[in-house]
Amino acid sequence: MQVIRSVEEMKSFVGETRRAAKSLALVPTMGALHNGHLSLVRKAKNQCDTTVVSIFVNPTQFGPSEDLERYPRNLEKDVKALMPFNVSAAFVPSVEEMYPVGFATTVDPGAIGRRLEGASRPDHFRGVATVVLKLFNIVMPDRAYFGQKDFQQTVVISGLVKDFNLGVRMVLCPIVRDGDGVAVSSRNIYLAAEERVAARALNRSLEKARKLVWGGEILTHRVMGEMRRLLGSDSRVGLDYLEIVDPGSLNSVERITAGCLALVAVKIGSTRLIDNTILGPFGASEEDLLRISRANHCGAALPSPKSLQAS
Amino acid sequence: MQVIRSVEEMKSFVGETRRAAKSLALVPTMGALHNGHLSLVRKAKNQCDTTVVSIFVNPTQFGPSEDLERYPRNLEKDVKALMPFNVSAAFVPSVEEMYPVGFATTVDPGAIGRRLEGASRPDHFRGVATVVLKLFNIVMPDRAYFGQKDFQQTVVISGLVKDFNLGVRMVLCPIVRDGDGVAVSSRNIYLAAEERVAARALNRSLEKARKLVWGGEILTHRVMGEMRRLLGSDSRVGLDYLEIVDPGSLNSVERITAGCLALVAVKIGSTRLIDNTILGPFGASEEDLLRISRANHCGAALPSPKSLQAS
Repeated sequence: MQVIRSVEEMKSFVGETRRAAKSLALVPTMGALHNGHLSLVRKAKNQCDTTVVSIFVNPTQFGPSEDLERYPRNLEKDVKALMPFNVSAAFVPSVEEMYPVGFATTVDPGAIGRRLEGASRPDHFRGVATVVLKLFNIVMPDRAYFGQKDFQQTVVISGLVKDFNLGVRMVLCPIVRDGDGVAVSSRNIYLAAEERVAARALNRSLEKARKLVWGGEILTHRVMGEMRRLLGSDSRVGLDYLEIVDPGSLNSVERITAGCLALVAVKIGSTRLIDNTILGPFGASEEDLLRISRANHCGAALPSPKSLQAS
Repeated sequence: MQVIRSVEEMKSFVGETRRAAKSLALVPTMGALHNGHLSLVRKAKNQCDTTVVSIFVNPTQFGPSEDLERYPRNLEKDVKALMPFNVSAAFVPSVEEMYPVGFATTVDPGAIGRRLEGASRPDHFRGVATVVLKLFNIVMPDRAYFGQKDFQQTVVISGLVKDFNLGVRMVLCPIVRDGDGVAVSSRNIYLAAEERVAARALNRSLEKARKLVWGGEILTHRVMGEMRRLLGSDSRVGLDYLEIVDPGSLNSVERITAGCLALVAVKIGSTRLIDNTILGPFGASEEDLLRISRANHCGAALPSPKSLQAS
């Protein structure tokens, strides 16, 4: 695996891949790689000839009072985690390489970037969309792999791809959970032991919602009531938002239909955690992901043959 | 010349060009083609194998009280004007094709987009940068051709290219003037006969500035004083702004150095006109354009060999 640090070197690597007519996958990450990231890498490797993992803690998506400084960084460990996957290159640019002096142009994702996460983190999605567009332009992937845990991010990037006529196909991959049901996240390392126990409330409330909808409940306010009760049962859990939304528009729904999502964000101690689930009769299968991917004009989440030149 | 109306068809045309390893030029226009546009087409044809001219009156760069409705549209005449140049394709998308229902993501050019033209036309450069990024992504040109008359536009697009790591090389081409010195513009057709006479004041004031600087004057306030006097001598000319700026930052300068620009915007009747000139000891030669192009990380304005695959 090559570790590439400059945009120019990355572009020349991409040029070679293109000339060899190989399909190219990008897995954009902020490092601190966990099983969620590695599931994206696995899928990318399954679907494309060449896989590039970018590792960049993007400062512009952190708010002024957020955890940019303490966000975990350990390149050596990340490189080691990628080794078994035979990834072609890790793209690890510096902040100066991505945002040289005079940098000024940004992507404005519009109204969808101001809801939910965007309401709590005002310039978050501007930062995300800008850095992802830059990564797309540098790496020029056929496919890019994103995790369902940051579902709103996928919707924002999907809008970017569609609105800006990009040739990238997005692939959405399911949430990976630890044995206790907590969604894996680089921020989980911030949690003290008793906070980790409290964090189970997120998945418990989402499981409850799935069961209720599976059992025939279609009224959002009833499902949310049960979820709130579960989230409120632990005093360490401070609810930021809880919504049941349409997967394409992210607008709240009053009645739940198959493919709607329940999205939750909480603060436990000083750590902010998010989680979500797909609701509907099918449970959270790959088929459901495929379905909500389509609603967002994403590519198929299911495996497909390699060397998809015209992806 | 193919007239292509859909994004999909344009992308497939581009794919064929790419596979044939031909260099590709884009000349983005809003139609109503005049000698200024045609000079860009001529240069594009000189430098690249395949030239695409886009014709799209972009609604998002017009303000609510501006001339979107009456902006001249005549595709038949435009196609006829392009015929002698043996252009490969005209890309003529509809508004719905470029901005389908749900379109939301835009490019924010930052502070430089809020000065000068941007102060008078608040969302103008957001609209320009967004549509140009879309055109770049659809046509994927090696080189894109812009006219010096819309100088601030070039600076905004140059920032877009640099900040978003695009692979496009910009080429800036000199202002084309009619026999009476008025810069050619699609909006000149709005001018009544006596307004057209008044419009000469723009170039007269710019020529005066060039002469003063050529003669050794370096103080902006003195040059601007003379220019204001000339512009004010015709009561039909309503001054919007007049500035002498650094070509890279567009910041006002107190002392004029070679390569600075004088930029002027006026209203004559209901018609808004802009014009500019490069100041300095060399006059407004291609070498000067090359120099200010470099300040904006643009490509060379001077001719170069065809088939510049790695442009």
